[in-house]
Amino acid sequence: MSRPETRIEDSLARLGSKLPKPPPGSERRYETGSRPDLRVPYREVIQSPTTRDGMIRPNPPIPLYETSGAYGDPAVEKDFQRGLIPVRDGWIAERDDTEPVASPLATQRLRVGHPFRNRKIRRARPGVQVTQLHYAREGRITPEMEFVALRENVRLAHLREDPRYEQLLRQHAGLMTSPSLVTPECVRQEIAAGRAILPVNINHPEVEPMAIGRRFRVKINSNIGNSAVTSSISEEVEKLACAVLWGSDTVMDLSTGAEIHETREWILRNSPVPIGTVPIYQALEKVGGRAEALDWPAFRETLIEQAEQGVDYFTIHAGVRLAHLPLTARRVTGIVSRGGSILAFWCLAHHEENFLYTHFDELCEILAAYDVSISLGDGLRPGSIADANDEAQFAELATLGELTRKAWDHGVQVMIEGPGHIPLQRIPENVERELALCAEAPFYTLGPLTTDVAPAYDHITSAIGAAVIGGAGTAMLCYVTPKEHLGLPNRADVRDGLMAYRIAAHAADLAKGFPGAQLQDNALSLARYEFRWEDQFNLSIDPERARSFHDETLPKEAHKTAHFCSMCGPHFCSMNLTEEMRVLADRQGVPVETLRRSGLSEKAREFVARGAGIDGDPGVG
Amino acid sequence: MSRPETRIEDSLARLGSKLPKPPPGSERRYETGSRPDLRVPYREVIQSPTTRDGMIRPNPPIPLYETSGAYGDPAVEKDFQRGLIPVRDGWIAERDDTEPVASPLATQRLRVGHPFRNRKIRRARPGVQVTQLHYAREGRITPEMEFVALRENVRLAHLREDPRYEQLLRQHAGLMTSPSLVTPECVRQEIAAGRAILPVNINHPEVEPMAIGRRFRVKINSNIGNSAVTSSISEEVEKLACAVLWGSDTVMDLSTGAEIHETREWILRNSPVPIGTVPIYQALEKVGGRAEALDWPAFRETLIEQAEQGVDYFTIHAGVRLAHLPLTARRVTGIVSRGGSILAFWCLAHHEENFLYTHFDELCEILAAYDVSISLGDGLRPGSIADANDEAQFAELATLGELTRKAWDHGVQVMIEGPGHIPLQRIPENVERELALCAEAPFYTLGPLTTDVAPAYDHITSAIGAAVIGGAGTAMLCYVTPKEHLGLPNRADVRDGLMAYRIAAHAADLAKGFPGAQLQDNALSLARYEFRWEDQFNLSIDPERARSFHDETLPKEAHKTAHFCSMCGPHFCSMNLTEEMRVLADRQGVPVETLRRSGLSEKAREFVARGAGIDGDPGVG
Repeated sequence: MSRPETRIEDSLARLGSKLPKPPPGSERRYETGSRPDLRVPYREVIQSPTTRDGMIRPNPPIPLYETSGAYGDPAVEKDFQRGLIPVRDGWIAERDDTEPVASPLATQRLRVGHPFRNRKIRRARPGVQVTQLHYAREGRITPEMEFVALRENVRLAHLREDPRYEQLLRQHAGLMTSPSLVTPECVRQEIAAGRAILPVNINHPEVEPMAIGRRFRVKINSNIGNSAVTSSISEEVEKLACAVLWGSDTVMDLSTGAEIHETREWILRNSPVPIGTVPIYQALEKVGGRAEALDWPAFRETLIEQAEQGVDYFTIHAGVRLAHLPLTARRVTGIVSRGGSILAFWCLAHHEENFLYTHFDELCEILAAYDVSISLGDGLRPGSIADANDEAQFAELATLGELTRKAWDHGVQVMIEGPGHIPLQRIPENVERELALCAEAPFYTLGPLTTDVAPAYDHITSAIGAAVIGGAGTAMLCYVTPKEHLGLPNRADVRDGLMAYRIAAHAADLAKGFPGAQLQDNALSLARYEFRWEDQFNLSIDPERARSFHDETLPKEAHKTAHFCSMCGPHFCSMNLTEEMRVLADRQGVPVETLRRSGLSEKAREFVARGAGIDGDPGVG
Repeated sequence: MSRPETRIEDSLARLGSKLPKPPPGSERRYETGSRPDLRVPYREVIQSPTTRDGMIRPNPPIPLYETSGAYGDPAVEKDFQRGLIPVRDGWIAERDDTEPVASPLATQRLRVGHPFRNRKIRRARPGVQVTQLHYAREGRITPEMEFVALRENVRLAHLREDPRYEQLLRQHAGLMTSPSLVTPECVRQEIAAGRAILPVNINHPEVEPMAIGRRFRVKINSNIGNSAVTSSISEEVEKLACAVLWGSDTVMDLSTGAEIHETREWILRNSPVPIGTVPIYQALEKVGGRAEALDWPAFRETLIEQAEQGVDYFTIHAGVRLAHLPLTARRVTGIVSRGGSILAFWCLAHHEENFLYTHFDELCEILAAYDVSISLGDGLRPGSIADANDEAQFAELATLGELTRKAWDHGVQVMIEGPGHIPLQRIPENVERELALCAEAPFYTLGPLTTDVAPAYDHITSAIGAAVIGGAGTAMLCYVTPKEHLGLPNRADVRDGLMAYRIAAHAADLAKGFPGAQLQDNALSLARYEFRWEDQFNLSIDPERARSFHDETLPKEAHKTAHFCSMCGPHFCSMNLTEEMRVLADRQGVPVETLRRSGLSEKAREFVARGAGIDGDPGVG
């Protein structure tokens, strides 16, 4: 508490040099939409050419979805003390449906002289709706919606017309019915129907819009935040920047310790992705950490203060009802959600209904005024395999369905939080029930962990569940780090957690047959087959680690062009042998390229029937 | 090659001190079967008592399946230069159906003076069958089968009769129809039907018997082995010992470099788990690395030499037929199996049918004489998402089904290898086709990887696929390490790969509802809920790492008994709050224990109806 006030700025000033570099071998690009201020970022991996038989064939660049905002653009100077450029300012202003807040709590709570103390805060004009859900229902396609459409496609419309990408875009038969491009109108429809949300607080103009819905790419959330025991503000901002550089689509600030308000301010001003919070944590700090002392006025003030700061979505545990609590009594691990247990305790201490449930209409009115989306918390999610899919969990889910409809009546965007710990065979039931009970509002799950026995590896136990639940229709996956159940994650844990979840989300996109999802796999595999090592590294989700793992056993520069690796050595390389086999088939008079392009089973018979001998000695090594 | 001959023994002598210690907080125990020489190892985690309201309640020990052989028993002195005790010697001898081999290749290939140069080698007497499949068909329950039955149950029969385990044994509704105990007769039936194998070469008496079949626990294989580029003999023996200490059920020695024969000898003599190999690698070394120079005599000699050494299963790529090869021509990554590409090249170079296919009957006769199981290799497995479930893959699988029946005719035990790289939604089809085409022979898959884009994290991309395919009925999972596609794994990679696969296998066991599988989850979760930190660590799959991750943020000894961790700090701990809530409910006149034992929904109504106020101030922190 007695921290010298200048130290935060000092450590923020040093942050830039501590961040991971944007991935090598690629360049930041922007696709411009229907207006010049609508510039959608993507990353383009530059491939090296294929050299074979003295011929050089160029390989096309591979565009990839990008979450890192300014941190991934070397051309933009990073200044954490000033924050990011508010790209949405113009769009919000020209809608002309907001007004400045006279004495905002958000800035008053900052010390005099704080760089963000004089920030302008907006809210909806009285009687006016400013949510993306409202605009969508009115049939208006906002710049945010168009941004999302271009972003989801990552130039797929262009690639489909370019013959260089024909083979690379080949995709498996998927589960989704429509492999069509995402259009701005499609984004509008999904939001209007409540099947997707576009979380963008009008006070967080720094956000690059993204959408959460099962029609779109599966998204990842990472949690950061200090606790009473450890961590500091600049560490949290560092985790935020790292998280978006490593592919996080949204970030939740779960701070519970001192300086919650200022930590969040620095995070918001420096975040290109939507920020979520759990307001009950701060409300609890306000009443001295005594759950039974919580009340609606303290909570209401917290909502306003955070909405003014620009938080894009709030986790609200309004589904933890008094009547549900006895259903948890027989559980092995009781209530494991922090927010859930706080509200359960409150309900029981007062023997009253959860005040978030009884004040839900008023709560929605506040959120609507800033376009804060609501993430209906699963306070009764199971904390162990034994407690999965139980009566308590599904009783709360039914209540969340009821609250979803109420929030929609207020024009508030909604998503539904899900478990937790669930054995593999019971995961699909979670998605089915959620879609049915909550009218297809997007599902946002924590894992789920598919076993309890692996503390220190729960990024893996849960990535398994996350991939399966993502493939089944979950829209966003909340990551789990290796430190889950053991301690607060550090920067390395954030990286491990994010990579595990990027894998899960991508596996789910492949399974759903999301248009263009397989491009990256195909390009990387072709690079692998052709021993274009640098391309293989650069196309991977973590080029730095892929390269360093390769170099551990074959460090020399020459080995980056070698046609083998240390796994098999040069004489046992199956890729080499396959290529030799193709050359041999070619010599025998069956051009492989012909085989590639024509009916296979017929050609197979023809090929075998031909039976020409071999000339010379092709060799193996 | 000019390595001083004493150096191997020297470095083996130093190995013992380099091994990881058996997990702390647990003790090695043995359950004795129907005869005194049938001692089945298991590990028992000793739990600390629960302290609450001044009362101390003891918690029962938790028995766990154990793979580590003598390495996990502190009472046994480790001597890598002498090898392990041949626990099966008596069982093999008393069957009296084998005879000594006069001039075994296995020992002749070792230098004069080598400690294993005078080892006795056995083979079946002429005209006599010595395979576990043969015994099973005859209705004989061997000591090996009884061993497997006791091992699979891990004392479950005893625990079910002990009231202390009642709650801990609660299990979810699973997918398997019969949650009954594994009996010796059940093991016999599964083997006789070909649905399971019990891989035990009569020349590998050091093996502690285990079974691979979908009626049993999902097993894990780890690969070790040097390549021409790197690694040494003592490093491989070290990896072997580490692998079984970390939970590997079988180990494949995939060495391809120099000293294949001697490396394998050291591995076998020191392995308590079945060892698999791919004999074509050594055959290729014999013909100077030129695939086209391979022939049946060279291969046949290799089979005999390795069978005499005691290899328990051979991967045989007899399904790579000439007619299948053109089906791979259009693939993105061609043929990625090393053995598959060697044989494909051979077929094409000679324009002849695969000699392993044409000599398959003779091959089976050799294997039967030692009870070497056959693992029918999937030489045409897909090496990328693009190539998954294609015509080449399934054409080979149909051939493997044909060969399965042939091997069974010779009394040889068979399992079927599977992919590879498969997107999530196409995984079930692999199991369904395998069961149908191969008459339910056990399936043994490599992952599968669910995306190509994550080199350096392929233990995770593939653990996802492994859990799903395991739950769908795959009997054994071949691990993948983080180094896959990049280099040869080191000891740390072996650990990471094994932990990821133990998670996948256990998640599959839970999903299948294997009897007793959930005991470990329930016990760990209860320990977690009760803040018995040491028990939580000791019950986990990697106690050492769980403890060190916890201690990174809360290193003091006192924090091992603290009722919070650094994730939330003391005031936000949901477990604490839940416990306080239960105490509160109790004070209000509704004993939680009553709720635990009775109909819940009724009690819920009653509880809410009662509505007693609170006395005093329960507090939160």
